[in-house]
Amino acid sequence: MTAAVPVELPGGWEVIGGALNGGALLRAATTALGERVPHPDPVTVTGHFLGPGRPGPATLAARILRRGGRHSTAAATLRQDGHDVVAVLATFGDLAAVGPARRAAPDLPPPEACVRIVPEEIPGAPAVFDRIDVRLDPRSAGFLRGAPTGRGEMAGWVRVPGGTGTAGLVLLADVFPPAIFDHGVLGWVPTVELTVHCRRRPPEGWIAARFRTRHVTGPYLEEDGELWDAAGNLLALSRQLALAPR
Amino acid sequence: MTAAVPVELPGGWEVIGGALNGGALLRAATTALGERVPHPDPVTVTGHFLGPGRPGPATLAARILRRGGRHSTAAATLRQDGHDVVAVLATFGDLAAVGPARRAAPDLPPPEACVRIVPEEIPGAPAVFDRIDVRLDPRSAGFLRGAPTGRGEMAGWVRVPGGTGTAGLVLLADVFPPAIFDHGVLGWVPTVELTVHCRRRPPEGWIAARFRTRHVTGPYLEEDGELWDAAGNLLALSRQLALAPR
Repeated sequence: MTAAVPVELPGGWEVIGGALNGGALLRAATTALGERVPHPDPVTVTGHFLGPGRPGPATLAARILRRGGRHSTAAATLRQDGHDVVAVLATFGDLAAVGPARRAAPDLPPPEACVRIVPEEIPGAPAVFDRIDVRLDPRSAGFLRGAPTGRGEMAGWVRVPGGTGTAGLVLLADVFPPAIFDHGVLGWVPTVELTVHCRRRPPEGWIAARFRTRHVTGPYLEEDGELWDAAGNLLALSRQLALAPR
Repeated sequence: MTAAVPVELPGGWEVIGGALNGGALLRAATTALGERVPHPDPVTVTGHFLGPGRPGPATLAARILRRGGRHSTAAATLRQDGHDVVAVLATFGDLAAVGPARRAAPDLPPPEACVRIVPEEIPGAPAVFDRIDVRLDPRSAGFLRGAPTGRGEMAGWVRVPGGTGTAGLVLLADVFPPAIFDHGVLGWVPTVELTVHCRRRPPEGWIAARFRTRHVTGPYLEEDGELWDAAGNLLALSRQLALAPR
């Protein structure tokens, strides 16, 4: 049975032309679904992006497919003003008791030694960086001065004032500048699909992130992301399929 | 509008206890959806696995969410005998014209120098390896003789007699032994969610594959896969969230 759940899409996460960041849309849908299932944490969330979403009221057509012992699964479509915005599949579980996982965390300079992204320096992406503190590893910030490294890597720190719940990891997986910028290719990188695996509840404070694009085939590229706490525990893995700038 | 599409789940891909391989289920759903959209190739497919599927008739509750210029998107739930088997989101496009992408293909010995998987040697997984020719890089085959490398990598070649369409990549992303076996952890590795990005139409003949598991947190692990043609072009990227053996 499909329920129509009212969702308010928050302002402050606009990217291009007033449209909301894809991670912000997917977080909003994930949060609304999470209130309808017995398990507290999203563990894997996929969104297929169908059209722009703007701040304001929207409706989530939501269906709970499973309420099991370990997992709940929900399917949903977020609609606004008569068009589909994002289709979502999400499985929820309980991340309260996961152990540490300290393997291959990125080796980053401290946040104070990183390059803070200020809105004026990222054309087209003002609102996001007013809301969130993103600091780029200087090695990833070369694109800002026309000197990308060619590694296709965007790494650094991110901090959400007041912290964030597990669903916030879905947002954090989509707020860094695209890793393809470090290949020297600048422009709009629209997300076709974003999947995030949440592996641990995020702490308050700085979260380390690393995004990489290795394969550009025709119009498509992948961006693989990792989020880590400051102690080196894995928080989330993300992957998106996106369109390369023309 | 949701359509009820009859789907025949093919035998020959059973793994544990007569249940079909997750990739085979997702391929069947993807193929059925592909017949209802104008674009010829799946480009990103996600399945959340809800219950076992067995060979025989099933029903796909399918809804086409978008028929756009570049992409079509569909949502579906595969049901059999009154229970949900897998929930699917799939976006289709056209991979006819993608250029080469030859970056970081695995360095494998030729198939003749690899270890053929014969059903008797993989407990619980007989049917799959009767239908498909999988050859493991000897470095990945250590688990067969109790000598895993600890790298968490399963690489080798795979060949489907008669070749396969693009949707076949979804199956091939799930037919190797789990990469966690190379960490010395053996047992059932049930898939929670599988996402496959198809980047190029597969050729007939040998396809190179590499799967890696790097992060085990509590019950969860990821398995990241790559599929390549013999000329070194990327065919697909896959990632699954799975449960680690107990």
